[in-house]
Amino acid sequence: MTKDGSGKGDKKAQQYGVTPQSTDFNDWYNEVVKKADLADNSPVAGAMVVRPYGSALWENIVRWLDDRFKATGHESLVFPTLIPMGFITKEADHVEGFAPELFTVSKIGTEVLSEPYVMRPTSETIIGHMWSGWLNSYRDLPFLHYQWGSVFRAELRTKAFLRTSEFFWHEGHTAHADEPEARAEVRQMLDIYHEFCRDVLALPVVRGEKTASERFAGAVATYSIEGMMRDGKALQSGTSHYLGQNFSKAFDVKFQTREQKEEYAHTTSWAISSRIIGAIIMTHGDDFGLIMPPRIAPIQVVVIPVGRKDNFDAMVQEGETLAAELRAQGLRVKVDRRDGVTNGFKYNDWELKGVPVRIELGPRDLEQGVVVVKSRNSDEKETLQRADAVSGMAARLDGIHDWLLERATTFLREHTLNVDSYDAFQTAIEAGNWVRAYHCGDAACEKSIKDDTKATTRNVPLDDAEFFSERGEGTCVKCGQPSAYGKRVIFGRQY
Amino acid sequence: MTKDGSGKGDKKAQQYGVTPQSTDFNDWYNEVVKKADLADNSPVAGAMVVRPYGSALWENIVRWLDDRFKATGHESLVFPTLIPMGFITKEADHVEGFAPELFTVSKIGTEVLSEPYVMRPTSETIIGHMWSGWLNSYRDLPFLHYQWGSVFRAELRTKAFLRTSEFFWHEGHTAHADEPEARAEVRQMLDIYHEFCRDVLALPVVRGEKTASERFAGAVATYSIEGMMRDGKALQSGTSHYLGQNFSKAFDVKFQTREQKEEYAHTTSWAISSRIIGAIIMTHGDDFGLIMPPRIAPIQVVVIPVGRKDNFDAMVQEGETLAAELRAQGLRVKVDRRDGVTNGFKYNDWELKGVPVRIELGPRDLEQGVVVVKSRNSDEKETLQRADAVSGMAARLDGIHDWLLERATTFLREHTLNVDSYDAFQTAIEAGNWVRAYHCGDAACEKSIKDDTKATTRNVPLDDAEFFSERGEGTCVKCGQPSAYGKRVIFGRQY
Repeated sequence: MTKDGSGKGDKKAQQYGVTPQSTDFNDWYNEVVKKADLADNSPVAGAMVVRPYGSALWENIVRWLDDRFKATGHESLVFPTLIPMGFITKEADHVEGFAPELFTVSKIGTEVLSEPYVMRPTSETIIGHMWSGWLNSYRDLPFLHYQWGSVFRAELRTKAFLRTSEFFWHEGHTAHADEPEARAEVRQMLDIYHEFCRDVLALPVVRGEKTASERFAGAVATYSIEGMMRDGKALQSGTSHYLGQNFSKAFDVKFQTREQKEEYAHTTSWAISSRIIGAIIMTHGDDFGLIMPPRIAPIQVVVIPVGRKDNFDAMVQEGETLAAELRAQGLRVKVDRRDGVTNGFKYNDWELKGVPVRIELGPRDLEQGVVVVKSRNSDEKETLQRADAVSGMAARLDGIHDWLLERATTFLREHTLNVDSYDAFQTAIEAGNWVRAYHCGDAACEKSIKDDTKATTRNVPLDDAEFFSERGEGTCVKCGQPSAYGKRVIFGRQY
Repeated sequence: MTKDGSGKGDKKAQQYGVTPQSTDFNDWYNEVVKKADLADNSPVAGAMVVRPYGSALWENIVRWLDDRFKATGHESLVFPTLIPMGFITKEADHVEGFAPELFTVSKIGTEVLSEPYVMRPTSETIIGHMWSGWLNSYRDLPFLHYQWGSVFRAELRTKAFLRTSEFFWHEGHTAHADEPEARAEVRQMLDIYHEFCRDVLALPVVRGEKTASERFAGAVATYSIEGMMRDGKALQSGTSHYLGQNFSKAFDVKFQTREQKEEYAHTTSWAISSRIIGAIIMTHGDDFGLIMPPRIAPIQVVVIPVGRKDNFDAMVQEGETLAAELRAQGLRVKVDRRDGVTNGFKYNDWELKGVPVRIELGPRDLEQGVVVVKSRNSDEKETLQRADAVSGMAARLDGIHDWLLERATTFLREHTLNVDSYDAFQTAIEAGNWVRAYHCGDAACEKSIKDDTKATTRNVPLDDAEFFSERGEGTCVKCGQPSAYGKRVIFGRQY
């Protein structure tokens, strides 16, 4: 068997205790999250505890994105976690979208508050309020702001990283003097998200615009990147919104133009959250556990000293020497120093955690100047000259990245079907695919499809998206009316 | 005049609008925070908004400390922001300490909670709860954990960075098999904080143990670093607590020892918060505004292209070239590209923001291959060969660091008085000093001093602290009983 999910996993999985994906994808996910030490349940309804391995992964995600935001001229700020309840109700669509999910703070110390606060579900409102105080002239613009932090939206059924009442994200917020500049920002950030997914996480994602009924509460236009999980469901992996002047009018964010007129700012917001970890798990994982994309992996190479009782400490020292050589190349390396467990246990533990490359180092290897190397995406162990293993490691990791991206891209293409009848639509969705179909653009029609199939529109791919961007016209797959959007829309079930 | 606060400031301050420290230290602080774009008031009672310049400073603080925590084997985790109310009440001293300050969440969506949550004032309780599930054997120990995030403690009178209902920090939490190892951890972290203050922030701080009445709620022993502000008040700048088995007993954090016995873990916690930014402002600032310690400064060098209308763009380009040469040395450099304001405005703006070094670059300088350099701690402009200015910049910044540390150390020593009578004690405190006095160690006696003078014990310096560590015996400065602690205790008014 190969590692792409075709069979052998079952026995090994039973032995080491991970339910195969094909048996129950949901169980597989929950077990991997726990056993790989990514996260644990918490005593707070709907919230998780992120454990060190998950936290290290998130930190790498934060650092890459943060560097990119700064490189594109954005500045971080820190806004309060609480928002006056009255702010949320100022933008009509916004309150409708978020009211059912709000955490309400009604008492501080012994004082019962006359106007309660809410824990932020997102920060457009309070940021709009602050901007209105900071903005005077067109010379002050653009505001290119973002913050990292937690947000709070009540969830009934929790699933680590994917659906938690408290989750972690950055929220970008920008204000511009005119619509074209604001829309260019919206696109820039969507493209950065796309680049991050493809080039760092090895996730193929489809860039497109959301249909009206799937827009962010209060947005004029919402764009998303959508990824396909190995069960065929979609995960919205990042969003970028053009908010028009909706929030600036609600919060009086106006400025004097070059021509001395008063104008409301055009604003945007954009976010990637800790859900992206769910996408990594469900796009790359297999029956042995996680496969960490090498460029974001907390541990890129694990060195396993293979010794007996009498020479184990010496082999650990040799392992550290080898690790130092790898680290000198800028790689993130761990030496497994545990002496209370078998080598077999260690091998499976690091496979479960998805470390891209394992190096086994035994006394005989040391004498012969070789090491045993195993890539997580291959069944083969290779015996290599030690110097070659070290000098070739960066290229090996790049190769694993390419392999993951190609595998996921093939999977995405194979499970996205062009469909022109509603029967075929329903069959395709039921079988765990996305479908590409013409649609009339009517929200009620969209809803009837959702009611029938649980599939929603994912997005309308941009003209220059790598996938599914061809223009065309047809009739609505559900109601037969002429198609909207000038191309097929992607439908799928989603997380 | 020199920049150490002896006079000329007044006129300039009036002109550019900062109240001199000597006129009103509190006004000076608030104006500097706002005008230097560090922070702003928010519409949420007790909470601030940290603006880009303040956020960049905090990010540098976070990064240095985070790297150090990881280098000493600590792992980050993310625990929920909310804590079940019932957890807080489990450790008796803990609830007594925090109950008056709690933010209570009693409604989620439309559901009124039967047991409310609190927004964390600190996380010992929920972390203890999780640990009890993770800990089985001595082999699992130590747990070396920390997290970055916001905490919430109601404050009536807000002061940016110093006293806000929401503030930012890391909280370290560790669990150990025995007391000596736990105490060594407590000391290690205190020493890291000390090193950070001295070597990165140029802040001299006194390491010592808190007296019993100033301990953290639930701790066996609390250690602190204490800094002196330029108004003579103390700022507790970091704490490290030995919690004994108090929290592990409350949360059942126990393990099987090597000898197969059951034992409760010995735990620690430690923190530095966003208050440290207040310490930077109030230790180094002068009548012109901030002075950023060079090693943490968001901008270490600002380049000001000095041009006229017809050659301004060209000078900006030259400024960028110079900035690139400085950045190639790893320095953080900004080019002031604003063209709507005068050079004088720019000079004062960057002095207010405390940028350690300013370089002025004019067309004639360019022809002659020189630049004009001004260090923030000097009144002199120097004309230097461009290459020398670049190659000497790192050393210049180190020199400013040393100057700041020495100035603050001299100030600390000069304003800490040995006192042996209660009259002298009161006079010294009233005049804005710390005092070193013998004390009986009785909490009621300590309280009566506080009631008289508003001065509290800061700490009892460790035997190997750089300041005020000499051992000795005497009689209590207040009540005349024999002294405790084996040395003089530091008293002072505090923020």
